[in-house]
Amino acid sequence: MSFQDIGVAVVGAGFIGPVHVEALKRIGVRITGIMDTDPKKAEEARHQLALPKAYTDFATILADEDVDVVHLAVPNVLHYTLSKQALQAGKHVMCEKPLAMNAEESAELVALAAETGLAAGVCYNIRFYPLNLEARDMVQRGDVGQVYSIVGRYVQDWLLYDTDYNWRVLAEQGGALRAVADIGTHWMDLITSITGLKVEAVFADLQTVHPVRKRPIGEVETFSGKTLTEDQLEPVDITTEDSGAILMRLEGGARATLSVSQVTAGRKNTLEYEIAGSKQAVSWTSEQPNRLWIGNRNSPNAVLERDPGLVSAFTRPFTNYPGGHNEGFPDAFKQCFRAFYQAIASGQTGTPLYPTFAQGHHEVVLCDAILESHREERWVSVSY
Amino acid sequence: MSFQDIGVAVVGAGFIGPVHVEALKRIGVRITGIMDTDPKKAEEARHQLALPKAYTDFATILADEDVDVVHLAVPNVLHYTLSKQALQAGKHVMCEKPLAMNAEESAELVALAAETGLAAGVCYNIRFYPLNLEARDMVQRGDVGQVYSIVGRYVQDWLLYDTDYNWRVLAEQGGALRAVADIGTHWMDLITSITGLKVEAVFADLQTVHPVRKRPIGEVETFSGKTLTEDQLEPVDITTEDSGAILMRLEGGARATLSVSQVTAGRKNTLEYEIAGSKQAVSWTSEQPNRLWIGNRNSPNAVLERDPGLVSAFTRPFTNYPGGHNEGFPDAFKQCFRAFYQAIASGQTGTPLYPTFAQGHHEVVLCDAILESHREERWVSVSY
Amino acid sequence: MSFQDIGVAVVGAGFIGPVHVEALKRIGVRITGIMDTDPKKAEEARHQLALPKAYTDFATILADEDVDVVHLAVPNVLHYTLSKQALQAGKHVMCEKPLAMNAEESAELVALAAETGLAAGVCYNIRFYPLNLEARDMVQRGDVGQVYSIVGRYVQDWLLYDTDYNWRVLAEQGGALRAVADIGTHWMDLITSITGLKVEAVFADLQTVHPVRKRPIGEVETFSGKTLTEDQLEPVDITTEDSGAILMRLEGGARATLSVSQVTAGRKNTLEYEIAGSKQAVSWTSEQPNRLWIGNRNSPNAVLERDPGLVSAFTRPFTNYPGGHNEGFPDAFKQCFRAFYQAIASGQTGTPLYPTFAQGHHEVVLCDAILESHREERWVSVSY
Amino acid sequence: MSFQDIGVAVVGAGFIGPVHVEALKRIGVRITGIMDTDPKKAEEARHQLALPKAYTDFATILADEDVDVVHLAVPNVLHYTLSKQALQAGKHVMCEKPLAMNAEESAELVALAAETGLAAGVCYNIRFYPLNLEARDMVQRGDVGQVYSIVGRYVQDWLLYDTDYNWRVLAEQGGALRAVADIGTHWMDLITSITGLKVEAVFADLQTVHPVRKRPIGEVETFSGKTLTEDQLEPVDITTEDSGAILMRLEGGARATLSVSQVTAGRKNTLEYEIAGSKQAVSWTSEQPNRLWIGNRNSPNAVLERDPGLVSAFTRPFTNYPGGHNEGFPDAFKQCFRAFYQAIASGQTGTPLYPTFAQGHHEVVLCDAILESHREERWVSVSY
Repeated sequence: MSFQDIGVAVVGAGFIGPVHVEALKRIGVRITGIMDTDPKKAEEARHQLALPKAYTDFATILADEDVDVVHLAVPNVLHYTLSKQALQAGKHVMCEKPLAMNAEESAELVALAAETGLAAGVCYNIRFYPLNLEARDMVQRGDVGQVYSIVGRYVQDWLLYDTDYNWRVLAEQGGALRAVADIGTHWMDLITSITGLKVEAVFADLQTVHPVRKRPIGEVETFSGKTLTEDQLEPVDITTEDSGAILMRLEGGARATLSVSQVTAGRKNTLEYEIAGSKQAVSWTSEQPNRLWIGNRNSPNAVLERDPGLVSAFTRPFTNYPGGHNEGFPDAFKQCFRAFYQAIASGQTGTPLYPTFAQGHHEVVLCDAILESHREERWVSVSY
Repeated sequence: MSFQDIGVAVVGAGFIGPVHVEALKRIGVRITGIMDTDPKKAEEARHQLALPKAYTDFATILADEDVDVVHLAVPNVLHYTLSKQALQAGKHVMCEKPLAMNAEESAELVALAAETGLAAGVCYNIRFYPLNLEARDMVQRGDVGQVYSIVGRYVQDWLLYDTDYNWRVLAEQGGALRAVADIGTHWMDLITSITGLKVEAVFADLQTVHPVRKRPIGEVETFSGKTLTEDQLEPVDITTEDSGAILMRLEGGARATLSVSQVTAGRKNTLEYEIAGSKQAVSWTSEQPNRLWIGNRNSPNAVLERDPGLVSAFTRPFTNYPGGHNEGFPDAFKQCFRAFYQAIASGQTGTPLYPTFAQGHHEVVLCDAILESHREERWVSVSY
Repeated sequence: MSFQDIGVAVVGAGFIGPVHVEALKRIGVRITGIMDTDPKKAEEARHQLALPKAYTDFATILADEDVDVVHLAVPNVLHYTLSKQALQAGKHVMCEKPLAMNAEESAELVALAAETGLAAGVCYNIRFYPLNLEARDMVQRGDVGQVYSIVGRYVQDWLLYDTDYNWRVLAEQGGALRAVADIGTHWMDLITSITGLKVEAVFADLQTVHPVRKRPIGEVETFSGKTLTEDQLEPVDITTEDSGAILMRLEGGARATLSVSQVTAGRKNTLEYEIAGSKQAVSWTSEQPNRLWIGNRNSPNAVLERDPGLVSAFTRPFTNYPGGHNEGFPDAFKQCFRAFYQAIASGQTGTPLYPTFAQGHHEVVLCDAILESHREERWVSVSY
Repeated sequence: MSFQDIGVAVVGAGFIGPVHVEALKRIGVRITGIMDTDPKKAEEARHQLALPKAYTDFATILADEDVDVVHLAVPNVLHYTLSKQALQAGKHVMCEKPLAMNAEESAELVALAAETGLAAGVCYNIRFYPLNLEARDMVQRGDVGQVYSIVGRYVQDWLLYDTDYNWRVLAEQGGALRAVADIGTHWMDLITSITGLKVEAVFADLQTVHPVRKRPIGEVETFSGKTLTEDQLEPVDITTEDSGAILMRLEGGARATLSVSQVTAGRKNTLEYEIAGSKQAVSWTSEQPNRLWIGNRNSPNAVLERDPGLVSAFTRPFTNYPGGHNEGFPDAFKQCFRAFYQAIASGQTGTPLYPTFAQGHHEVVLCDAILESHREERWVSVSY
């Protein structure tokens, strides 16, 4: 099957839906349309993105025989229900993270995906920065040696002030965890995919610096807070965390330390990790995604620039521009979807490269354990 | 007129043609097809990129009423002829740089474009990294003060060895100048567009480190040399420069110093500039395109991260992702084309934001002056 | 009293003793000599450093009326006893960290210092990088706002292999904690001195990646392992930690996360912190000690270069070279000692700027709490 | 002869004289005193630096049998005369750069030094940053291959405004060239010492952005302008350059491009170079002096951290602290003087490592050629 033969509907016309659309266009699948429950927004998005249809209800998509795959770019609270319905309707699913609001839901989705044999992915796109794939290959091929420890963070500043608001700050919309679920799971998915090591236990300490936030009378899109005027606001109680630290014990004895924050001034969206192994260390930051630092003990350190001619055969198919021609955020989406559609087009079996529902479930399980650890102030074992 | 109403044909299926295609898809114009004179390559590209038609001759495109605009992503030697034919056929043109092989040709194209009233652009995409637009706005709004000097470079390593080969090394294919024309003109277009200052005189010293290169029996695409095996090679004399330095005197007394090189090991594709003004300095490097350094004398320096909420109203329309979500090389193409198609769609008059044929002509004139200066070892005045 | 009137003896001719000597020479105090119990080493050091006397026993120093101050640059296990004897003999003391092997010892030294009224400092020199003083002043003057969280690390690679050995790896020589005590306390002293906030509780997870190391038959100096041949080695059991993570709760609700490691390949000696406050964030790394990153939410970030003309009046006396003339590790020692001797010369009362025995004691108390937390896997409250 | 046996007098109590003093103390030579013609300043400096004598006239130093070496840290206009007198009096000389006001003077000093057999050095200390020594060794041992080109700059901002003033801006005090002589010669000495290649021809374009500056009624020390009040000023005509570009042709065909500026806002004191060779490129910036970038074409780039265990045997004696313990500006002085005094102490013959009068003369010759080139707008051959 060719990519052009695959029909795709994108659900959600907020910030991230159009990002999906552009990436899908670039890899050459056939987009049937975009959906928003607000007909005006749906039509605007359809026009803006030059797509065939503006959907306004999910049932229409499920009934559309032209649609083979649905992309879910909707608030977290809807992920479970829409994923379930899509799978039941025989559609492949690419769902934004986190996969569900709790582990019961995500476990059910994993089982349903397995039953149906449909491709079911969670959009942990950060794996697909080429140098993150290269780091994965470096660990897998033994360059790094035994992994001793991983340290990193994912920090932002878009919720710094108590006047910053988004549906994600509400537990009922985004889930009981916020910074951990929204950005922390990206980091955890990334380091577990790179190292191939599962997290066995977690210890967490979370922090809500603004127990009350001021909500604009008309709610706003993610990340757009900075240009908002602050005229009409109402107080709203917040139980989700603004920041936190998580310690992890991984298979084989490795440890990981993660800091998350949505209240660190000046860090717009910074994900960093450093993996220390018995032979080498590797370090990457989203602030310079085309560069991988490789630490050596007895020789100079190395800096690998993203370059199809310098990365391994594993990574090369997922990087499209010559060295020095920077790839960025939208390119990681493109490559993530490329892996997903290659699996669909080839009818691939075995463990695919894209983040599966099973892996998305693991992140939900980790979130549950993190919340429990934070509340009980003790190490919590993780069973998936 | 809406973007979707505009039909576009892309000519050239090498490295850069597909880059055009992806960018065009992202902004939502209607691509009619891609052309390569080799039918097999044309069809492969069409399929790979999921496009309607595979063109194999330019006349078909010119005759295609569905085509409003042609993008020329072909070797330099063809730019003049194809641009001319396209304009004469009533098509808007976006041509890869340099616009022509000499100033007579480019002057003719400027006149033809003016006569026809068609949009005619040269693909100096680097202007459209959002922070380069911001630097331009900073200079224009007076933040930088009087521009004293500009220093920078554009360096690569893909032609380091004498076994590296590409059509561009041959004067008859790429022009008498190579590094200056291919990458130097990007830098010169960039700094003249940022500062708004024309170059009045140049002094150049160019260098060919490999007067003989070894050509593969089957010629290769740009940038792909690194993965080539070196089995069958033939010697070929080279007259184009591998590197060089150019001094410039700009309107109002400002000076510029540019180094170009295609033989600097480890620099895959690095463009840097630093503009020193009477109030501030601004510095940008393509190695970190989402960051603009702003130098101050009596206060801390500033680092502006690309962020729609932090850049000016001038720049904001040309950056699509939140702060910290890196934009890169393909995004600069997208924004360059956005400016071009906005001008077409709106029937814009006055000086457009995209790089025009007039500006492309200026670069060709500069190249001629640079070559003359190098040969005669003296300052050469530039008249456009 | 003038600096030249103060007589100083330095005890210890290993790596750090001579660092003290150079710093003392630079600020202009009068060094009477250097001590090593091995007469040959003592004389070599005296000659190499061009000092008057080579001491071989501590009693001679205590009896030397020409000595007003002793600097203790000896293994940790000796800090308590020698500090005590020096104070009892009426000498001011500058002791290398950690102040003692446990909190009983350090508490006793604090009391003794208070009784005698002598100046008693612990060599947490990192405070005295000028930009760390500036960060402190930024927090104190309110620029940063309320401190929400602090994240950072102190990592090295000199003990990466099991063939790396130094007296510090043995609990009986260096203390039950190693990485935490040796480098972690530097970080904790630094962030508590910058923020002015005491640590109230700790949670720790420590890791020994090499439970057995191979000891050279002739023991070696700190840091020199890299050039050692590995001929004759004997196994030795190790109980001290190679790396670890520590979570902290500070006064007023701020949190801190620290990672320490002596087994991270390629990081020779990297200390980093980022303090996130309600108004700004500040970040510093020892890899670029002359640069302070200041994060802003609604304006560009700032980068303050160390420059006497740009730092505050608080910092200015502790930086000696113009902007762009980098200061480094030996300069931080110089400034630390400058603060210490200014206090002595002026007979200063009140809280001095140099790290006092009381603050050194706090670090020992923290180490005890960290060890307890690690062993019991729970938060441990800290009482000083 | 031991370092302690060598008596040294430092002439000049401005900014740089005390820098000499500290470095001399650190290497353990015996400083007899410091000189300033103003008795008050001389005594203040003596006291501040804890030195034996406060000299107020040069004759006294020349007559002082205790003085073996004189360090000249005085305005450029005095370098020739004092160096000459010192050599004639049988004293070794370490002179601040530039060696003289013109090539006749410097040639005479070279001859005089050779006649007397005394050690005669010019303080191009930047060579002695350990990683600059390492770069030199890399070139010498063939790692870099044939040198193709060198690009770099030396830029500052302390003379940005027309209210910035220092004796150096006056041709009669500092020489006809300013930025080139003061900072440009540092760069040229550095790259010629690293590559071992002499400059054969130069082309220059210089720029004076402030033809009139405002002089404070009481003149000020170098670099202190930033904290000056601007109350009482008088206009003074300036003929020396604020910035400029210099192209060079070196032995064997290599080219160099240098930009100098004292009017680039935000660059306090930045020296950068990148040497592109047939095998590797090496790049260093004074903003991160403990890091050397090494560019590779077909493998990842390398970053060498200054570390006695990682640098070559050539460099190791000139770096004193372990990796990660940054060395800076004062350390480069220390190492420069170490090389100088080792030559004196050992009675070394042959080409010493420290910058000799012959090399200082080369820089003066280069300055003369640069000035001629700038005035005549043509390439000027250099004969030493």
